[in-house]
Amino acid sequence: MTTTPAVQQQPTPERFFNAVNAYQLTEAIKSAIDLEVFTAIAEGHTTSADMAKRCGVAERGARILCDFLVVHQFLTKEKTHYGLAADSALFLDRHSAAYVGTATDFLLTPRLRDCHAHLTEAVRRGGTALEEGMVEPENPDWVKFAQGMMPMMSKAAEIMAIELRKGGEVRKVLDIAASHGMFGISVANENPAAHIYACDWGSVLEVAQKNAKAAGHANRYHLLPGSAFEVDFGRGYDLALITNFLHIFDRPTCTAFMRKVHAALNPGGRLAIAEEEAWEASILPLYDARSIWYSAIITKNLSLRTDATRGTFLEST
Amino acid sequence: MTTTPAVQQQPTPERFFNAVNAYQLTEAIKSAIDLEVFTAIAEGHTTSADMAKRCGVAERGARILCDFLVVHQFLTKEKTHYGLAADSALFLDRHSAAYVGTATDFLLTPRLRDCHAHLTEAVRRGGTALEEGMVEPENPDWVKFAQGMMPMMSKAAEIMAIELRKGGEVRKVLDIAASHGMFGISVANENPAAHIYACDWGSVLEVAQKNAKAAGHANRYHLLPGSAFEVDFGRGYDLALITNFLHIFDRPTCTAFMRKVHAALNPGGRLAIAEEEAWEASILPLYDARSIWYSAIITKNLSLRTDATRGTFLEST
Repeated sequence: MTTTPAVQQQPTPERFFNAVNAYQLTEAIKSAIDLEVFTAIAEGHTTSADMAKRCGVAERGARILCDFLVVHQFLTKEKTHYGLAADSALFLDRHSAAYVGTATDFLLTPRLRDCHAHLTEAVRRGGTALEEGMVEPENPDWVKFAQGMMPMMSKAAEIMAIELRKGGEVRKVLDIAASHGMFGISVANENPAAHIYACDWGSVLEVAQKNAKAAGHANRYHLLPGSAFEVDFGRGYDLALITNFLHIFDRPTCTAFMRKVHAALNPGGRLAIAEEEAWEASILPLYDARSIWYSAIITKNLSLRTDATRGTFLEST
Repeated sequence: MTTTPAVQQQPTPERFFNAVNAYQLTEAIKSAIDLEVFTAIAEGHTTSADMAKRCGVAERGARILCDFLVVHQFLTKEKTHYGLAADSALFLDRHSAAYVGTATDFLLTPRLRDCHAHLTEAVRRGGTALEEGMVEPENPDWVKFAQGMMPMMSKAAEIMAIELRKGGEVRKVLDIAASHGMFGISVANENPAAHIYACDWGSVLEVAQKNAKAAGHANRYHLLPGSAFEVDFGRGYDLALITNFLHIFDRPTCTAFMRKVHAALNPGGRLAIAEEEAWEASILPLYDARSIWYSAIITKNLSLRTDATRGTFLEST
């Protein structure tokens, strides 16, 4: 690789041009995931010719794409052999237990991309320029979220469940915006008598139910399909989980919702909220009528809150 | 701004997620340029409320967009006041002589974006997945290039002309792929008797001619409209300029072309080639049937070659 040493004593337009061209990297990483380039290299197909056969692409295509990924440090190159950078080996090889490549299915869903394609108009309006936001009933993107984001959330869910177990065993658990189900399932793992009541859109709960079954909790897993604002949660919960949810809504909506959850808890019941950090790093709040922002930077640590009965909740403007 | 300190002892999927979301930065910087956010701040509209009035956007839209640009270090923020980072002040304020914001018109032209939207297919084929590449006759994108990239090329063209003048005065100059005309015009600036013969598509030459006129060289500026491979250049040139052109074509095409240029030069005539560096940093070679690659990283220094009569030329595969 030919590289020019970065000498930046004085201002350069470099960052501007990198930003303008940043979308090329998005496309390159998506193509590499879709074509299983990282997986192919992990399997030993380290030349562009080998990769071409394994991935069903042209040798020239493999070479140009891989060279680009070398420059962006996802791959290494030694003569004609490509290798995986440490994080690519761990997270982008489909055979790795920590594989997160499925996340592109949600993160680059056409609706989200379309939001960004109309950013200028959204800034003018102060809100999404599209007819539909992300919080429409049964938005199929949340199925993609549930399927795509599960591998990323498993570890966080496990940590959260272990932490919550320290506060006492639970028997009836409400899992709001259950999605892939991992937060509730992890609690079930730590609390052998716990029954989990998972709330989300019906289509999304199919994903959660499948995962609950795979974890051996089919008999302790119950579904509450529908809008979390409208579904009757019932009563008697020792624990309610509200994960990656409140950030989507404005403060009055959250306040009303928390009253509803509070009413469903037993005396002394607990509420656990998990949200991503790095709020201000996101332009996503623009894309929904109701102050949506969410995990643009999903790689930050989850912040875990286990306040008694009433969680403090996050300021969303 | 809330930021999480970067502790990266072990592999994290952070770089992957940043890459997946990189296109958001492209959209944000384009919106900020289009809405003149940087210019507004330079003018003193430093709060989101002031900016909203100046740019004709919602206050909430201005705030969310600017916060995002703060995170990406294009802006600074002090309480409710935004400021320009040093490079934003120099290059992104429309009132600055070094303004390069017009470059987005070319760099984000729909055809280029469409190429990238079909990257996976291009990798499969080993070439563009679109019907038309960038080298079609009279492709209007080159007019955008000429208009948009001129501010960025002026300084490079000036340096090149001064360097060339050291090798002797010239009287008849061939400017191939003249585009905005700045390379030839700069030579005219340094050589008061020089006549410039500019070759490019007719629509593009209108831009060059306008710039030549503005520089006071209307009487010394001549047009050779059409394909550089087909147009009769004539003879008797002391100097030929081939700038940002050869990279588009494969080696046999370049070889044949260089013979044509050689035939047009006087004995002892000179040939100057300017190309961008950082070849391998680009996926753009994929997007044309004839090995196109070009300045994906246009911020690298121009490499200047002034070999006698026959330039060595660059290996394009």
